Formats: sequence, structure tokens, C-alpha cells
Amino acid sequence: MVIHPPVRPPRIVDFLCTEGPAAPTPTPAPSQPSSVALTQDELKRVAAYKAVEFVESGMVLGLGTGSTAKYAVDRIGELIQQGKLHNIVGIPTSKKTHDQAISLGIPLSDLDTHPVLDLAIDGADEVDPCLNLVKGRGGSLLREKMVEGACRRFVVIVDESKMVKWLGGSGLAMPVEIVPFCWKFTAERLQGLFGEYGCVAKLRTFGENCEPFVTDNANYVVDLYFEKEIRDLKWASDSILRLAGVVEHGMFLDMATTVIVAGELGVTVINK
Amino acid sequence: MVIHPPVRPPRIVDFLCTEGPAAPTPTPAPSQPSSVALTQDELKRVAAYKAVEFVESGMVLGLGTGSTAKYAVDRIGELIQQGKLHNIVGIPTSKKTHDQAISLGIPLSDLDTHPVLDLAIDGADEVDPCLNLVKGRGGSLLREKMVEGACRRFVVIVDESKMVKWLGGSGLAMPVEIVPFCWKFTAERLQGLFGEYGCVAKLRTFGENCEPFVTDNANYVVDLYFEKEIRDLKWASDSILRLAGVVEHGMFLDMATTVIVAGELGVTVINK
Repeated sequence: MVIHPPVRPPRIVDFLCTEGPAAPTPTPAPSQPSSVALTQDELKRVAAYKAVEFVESGMVLGLGTGSTAKYAVDRIGELIQQGKLHNIVGIPTSKKTHDQAISLGIPLSDLDTHPVLDLAIDGADEVDPCLNLVKGRGGSLLREKMVEGACRRFVVIVDESKMVKWLGGSGLAMPVEIVPFCWKFTAERLQGLFGEYGCVAKLRTFGENCEPFVTDNANYVVDLYFEKEIRDLKWASDSILRLAGVVEHGMFLDMATTVIVAGELGVTVINK
Repeated sequence: MVIHPPVRPPRIVDFLCTEGPAAPTPTPAPSQPSSVALTQDELKRVAAYKAVEFVESGMVLGLGTGSTAKYAVDRIGELIQQGKLHNIVGIPTSKKTHDQAISLGIPLSDLDTHPVLDLAIDGADEVDPCLNLVKGRGGSLLREKMVEGACRRFVVIVDESKMVKWLGGSGLAMPVEIVPFCWKFTAERLQGLFGEYGCVAKLRTFGENCEPFVTDNANYVVDLYFEKEIRDLKWASDSILRLAGVVEHGMFLDMATTVIVAGELGVTVINK
């Protein structure tokens, strides 16, 4: 569910501390500054492991999708197998994560049975200073938004390359899931909506023949690229959703409660 | 595209006249008061024939879906066959209308090729005094909204039983198209959204085994029933669209430019 962005962005001090002032777990970060540069994959793993420290036995957990979330799901499976976590129920955000969790022995359910989750852990493609996110470059934005909009606490895990000044600021895609029917028409309307922001809309394709990428819900994805910052994200969100043909978009506004950033200087926990 | 409802509803005099003050075609209504009561089907046909008087050769036309729109599509086909209309391009709003138009020899295209339409003609399930509509009880609301949101003029044809004081006021369904994934969860959130309006949400089913009804876009439909009037329709629209899992809803706000109502006392043309 998309609601108002917060009036007050997290204090900048949150970005400088290893752990923000309202951090829920005072445990030390597992990664410390080191003279050996970590790869992006290692940073993702560090953030994921830190996030799993928030997990407690008995929780209903949203299980994210993507290269960073995969580490968290692996870690949860490992802790269950070690007997350190029990009575966990996982709600996967994609078919891929469903299969991964099954292979790890994580008990699964769905939103119909568990409409309220204790915690979700997932990656993000971009995080702005107000903890608004772009998600869905991996193609699972709709299920992710359904699951993560239903949880009491949403912990986002990223490496520091994902922190941006404004959503779209990385120059990479802001995805929109649309129905396949007359997709060109919908893509043109999306581009037209943000003309003054230098928006370009492209259908996501794959393979040599540029076949349309199809989501888990049998829809297409149009990727939006922006040249300029959209300051009123709530307006942008509602404007996209009002277009008939749009199913959902990849802006996750005011949903993340904690962002864990792994960087060369350690792990930063930013709380809302 | 859903936009603000108008500040001023059409004047009540529009409802009392055979034709409203800003009516675009001064031709007399084809049906006059008679001592023989017309059936609902006959009223639908009368409204449909009146609407087709707005059609001119060379137009790109949105072709509606449902029992009333069917009469309009039949009539357009008849006029083309008689050589009274030519160079018509039809954009159907459903697979059913597509097949009907093909059988009548109406040339067809789509929104990708014709992103702006001259005119659309379609029925509605409810029409309120501001010419806001409920549509989609026939199951084609998404494609109808895409097509009818892209036309310069949208003529709605109804029999007088469809005129209501407020949307939902007939006690019949306001449909919402949703993705099948965790549909119960989405239905519960929809019902919860309008708890204070006595809302009940029901999955649309068909057949003896109560199989879910599936739209042309492979989605489900949840029907909302309201006990009380929702005065702020724009809020209702945005609130529904913000729920992840919702694809589109059946409120067509500020889209109709003309409503043609066939009743026992003749045809009334109401203009925005």
C-alpha cells in the first residue's frame, strides 16, 4: 500500500553511524572495516546476515527476491537447520524464492492464510534519503509489494551502491508492471506522464529475439528512465496507478522501516 | 484515466427534457411516449440507436461491450453495410465485441495503432447525477476503461433503470479486477477499506462448481456491495488503486461526456 512519504527524512547522522539511534538490535555489525576490499556480492551477504539478526522464532516472515535477498533466505534456512530458529513461517515474494525456500526446508504459507506478517527482508534497487525505494528490476515487484505492504516491519538490505539522492537517480530503471493488452499504448502514456522529467519508457525484453519479459502474474514490465528528479513522489505514484493498464509500479514509498547498508566501512543500520 | 469528479452536476432540467440544453444533435428522439410499455431490451435498443446518430464517417470508434452496447455495434455494422457510414475504424473493448464486429464487417484496429479515438459508445451498470459510472458487471472493465479513457467523446447508453442517486446505490456490484495471486487477501483489504460504508466483497464465480470468473486479461473480479453512499469518489478510486493486487476498478469518474437514457417517456440526452 502506498502512503504519504514522511515529512522528516532520517537524520543524516543515521548515515554516518554504524547503527542509527533507534536501532532495534545493539549487536555489533558482523563486518568491520578492513584493508581488504569486499566485492559487491560479499557486501550483499554482510547486509543480509545482519538483517537475519532481526528474525526470531515463531515469526511469520516475508522472504524477498533477488541477489541480496537470496543470501538472507539461505541464512534463515541455515539457522532453522541448526535448530537456532523454529516455528518460522515464510511467505515468498516470487516463484523463485518459493523454490529456494522449499529446497532449504523453510515452512511456507501465503497471504491468504497469514494476512499480517511480523517481518519482511528484501533487497532494493535504489534507496533515497527518506528510505523510499525502487524495487522490481528483478521482475517481482507486485508480489513483493503485496507481501511487504502487509508486514509490521520491513528490513531492506543493500550494498552502498544502491543509495541514491533521488529515486531514479542511478539512471537505471523504475519498473512498472502492466497488462499485455495494448502495452505500447500504456508505455506511451507512461512516458507522456513524465515528459517534463525527461522520461523514456522501454518494454523489458529478454533473449535474442527480444521477447517481452513476462512476470509471475503473466504481465509485462515497462522500465521508466528519468533525467530529472520527481520531487512529488506521491503524485507520481497516484498518476501511474490511475492509468488503466497499469497493475503496479516499483516505487515503494514509506514502506521500509529499516535499511541495512553494507559498505567498505562496515554496516550501517538506518531506522525510520 | 480517473480524474476529479465535476464540481457542478448536470442541471436537473437535463433530466426532464427530452434533450438537454447543450445536446449536440437536434434530431428528434426515435422513440416517443406511447401507450404500449417498452421492454427493457427495447429501451436499450432505442438508446443505442440514438447514440449511433453521433457517429460520422471517418471516425475511430470505441465499441462497447454488454447487452446495450451490442445494439449499437449491430447498428454501426448495419449502416456500414448500407453504405451510410464509411472509413470507420472500430476499437473493441472485449474479445466478445471483437468477434461481433468482425461478423458484421466492421474494420478493426487497436489502441497501439490509434491511441486517440473520436468517439466511444458503451453501456453502463449505473449512472449518477454527475454522470459518473459503474461499469464492468459484464467483466470487461479494464479494456473498456483503457479505450474509453482515450476518446474525445464518450457516449453512454442506458435504460432508465440504471440511473442512481449514488454509485453503488442500486445495491448491485461495483467490480474490481484483481490479480489471482492471493485474491482472498486482496478481497479482504478491499472490504476493510470501506468498512464504514457497510462494504461486502465477494469473488465473482460462475458455474455449478463456483469457479472464479476470469477476465480477458486472465485476472479475477471481486464485486463490492455498499450499504452507504461514498461521497468522496476520488478518494475511493485512489484508495482502491493503491492496493497492490488491484488492477483496475469499475468506477468511471468524469469520463462520460453524454449519457443517453431510454425510458417510458422517451429518450433523454444528458450532456456534461
